Amino acid sequence: MRIAQVAPLYESVPPKLYGGTERVVSYLTEELVKMGHEVILFASGDSKTKAKLIPICPNSLRFDKTCKDPLIWHLYMIEEVLKRAKFFDVIHFHTEYLHLPLATRYNLPFVNTLHGRLNLSEYVPFFKIFKNAPFISISYSQRKPLPWLNWVANVYHGLPEDLYKFKPQHGTYLAFLGRISPEKRPDRAIEIAEKFGMKLMIAAKVDKADETYFKEVIKPMLKSPWVEFIGEIGEKEKNEFLGNAYALVFPIDWPEPFGLVMIEALACGTPVVAWRCGSVPEIIEHGKTGFIVETIEEAVNFLEEVKNLNREDCRKSFEERFTARRMAEEYLNVYQRVILKEVYKRAV
Amino acid sequence: MRIAQVAPLYESVPPKLYGGTERVVSYLTEELVKMGHEVILFASGDSKTKAKLIPICPNSLRFDKTCKDPLIWHLYMIEEVLKRAKFFDVIHFHTEYLHLPLATRYNLPFVNTLHGRLNLSEYVPFFKIFKNAPFISISYSQRKPLPWLNWVANVYHGLPEDLYKFKPQHGTYLAFLGRISPEKRPDRAIEIAEKFGMKLMIAAKVDKADETYFKEVIKPMLKSPWVEFIGEIGEKEKNEFLGNAYALVFPIDWPEPFGLVMIEALACGTPVVAWRCGSVPEIIEHGKTGFIVETIEEAVNFLEEVKNLNREDCRKSFEERFTARRMAEEYLNVYQRVILKEVYKRAV
Repeated sequence: MRIAQVAPLYESVPPKLYGGTERVVSYLTEELVKMGHEVILFASGDSKTKAKLIPICPNSLRFDKTCKDPLIWHLYMIEEVLKRAKFFDVIHFHTEYLHLPLATRYNLPFVNTLHGRLNLSEYVPFFKIFKNAPFISISYSQRKPLPWLNWVANVYHGLPEDLYKFKPQHGTYLAFLGRISPEKRPDRAIEIAEKFGMKLMIAAKVDKADETYFKEVIKPMLKSPWVEFIGEIGEKEKNEFLGNAYALVFPIDWPEPFGLVMIEALACGTPVVAWRCGSVPEIIEHGKTGFIVETIEEAVNFLEEVKNLNREDCRKSFEERFTARRMAEEYLNVYQRVILKEVYKRAV
Repeated sequence: MRIAQVAPLYESVPPKLYGGTERVVSYLTEELVKMGHEVILFASGDSKTKAKLIPICPNSLRFDKTCKDPLIWHLYMIEEVLKRAKFFDVIHFHTEYLHLPLATRYNLPFVNTLHGRLNLSEYVPFFKIFKNAPFISISYSQRKPLPWLNWVANVYHGLPEDLYKFKPQHGTYLAFLGRISPEKRPDRAIEIAEKFGMKLMIAAKVDKADETYFKEVIKPMLKSPWVEFIGEIGEKEKNEFLGNAYALVFPIDWPEPFGLVMIEALACGTPVVAWRCGSVPEIIEHGKTGFIVETIEEAVNFLEEVKNLNREDCRKSFEERFTARRMAEEYLNVYQRVILKEVYKRAV
């Protein structure tokens, strides 16, 4: 199948450091190539892929100081995609809603994975216009604010099966990995560590937007003898960081659409103690691959029980539900359905 | 003529405080209504107009804290415009480039006034695709980075003739009006005031993005006995502020596409001492309505001569070249040409 993958341009594919969407696009693209498909990847020029890369801008835009207007690059990319549309069997957009006005006006098989949160009231009038386009969610919970969209599938993210090595031994510290921001609630993680009495290692980046929150709320809490802050870590360090942890603490306070770090922990065999929010109940099996909690007390109590969980169950859950191969197969299934529908529409 | 005006949604039309584009759209809209045309204004719901308002979002977006994604409102607006396209004789977009992908794919008479700076390298690939759309500049200098666009007209901004009252007497202070930002160079204005030995009154807002610049560069300079900082002022206070000034100092350091404040000063009869940048040489007549300079020394020397200028010449220049009526007439002329072309295209 000839498949176009259209990635955002903020990060390279895959990203050099943090970056969810572009990382998933990379895993999907490489897996589809491995399965023998012809993939054309529209992405920033510093991307690395075994697919055919169509570079849009020379560098990924997040760190490109010469670029003052990232939007216009994305609009340009959509034109570049449509110009070649007839050469593709299907086009897979990862650009949220930006391509919808044009893509829906062409007769072409395309799908949209929505990667972001959808609970913004300003989304409603726009998405109502395009509600019949074929949308794919990354968790069922993500759909809640816009249940009337034409959801053709739910496809959970996946990681290459051999990306992380399984660590059979229970680790000795709690891990917090991600961004320092109010909705990720590192403050809760620190409180849990103190009450449970186990060291918390925080590997996280601090975005510019969150600098005040970091300085005023989190920095004073880092004085605690139970906390160690190690800053942002790269892909390579993650395996050690997550695999050697007793549990990943994921005390989020927002409707997380997916939460890649949870399946990264599972791939290492590390259980997850997470708040009942967004996608969490769909990803974590309570009492098997971790615990789903709603208060700090619950978190502390269930952490006690983590040592009775079987780390092999975590790895098995990853292998069965969250590999890049499974993700690619599910997307291929959607592509085929959308292509058939388009062919049918043209025939009648 | 039935004319659609499509405004940005960041400010209401007219804006409550600062805001160039939405203010010009308001002047143009009201003038066209006064001339007997049927105008349909697409704008934020808190806009005020004698035209027919099609409200897109309840409030203007700059100060609406509930809105996290202003872009999607703009994309929604373009759909609302196109849905009604056949009811308009012409559509006038003020939304920079956002509407081009769709508007150029419809057979409809439309024009685009570009209000912003165009000297961004990321503009080139996108605008090349749409170079044949009918573009209107707000100064000839604005065109320089994209000379190959299909420029169908240049239309300078205009103000309602009776908006500002003429003040015949030379004033007693220098005026600086606008934003505190490195490209507006308030530091130069202060230096000029000190060297010339006349008080400088600064009426300016400080954007979040410019807070560091204000604190570190400008605030220490405000201690000078020659400077008074009075913060942001509204439309009503401007007439007094500009009219009672000896001269407006406009020491910009960027390719200003138009610079409304220059014609506001002229409308009050106040000469302008401005740097040779962007639109300045097109708006100010050196030795008649002000002076065009390139160094602080030149500015100081020419300020001496301002007292020999005739303030009536400034007002006359405004009345002849920069009224809203003149602007509306020039736009009507463009509308007619574009409509004829579209009719012709459909006939052949």
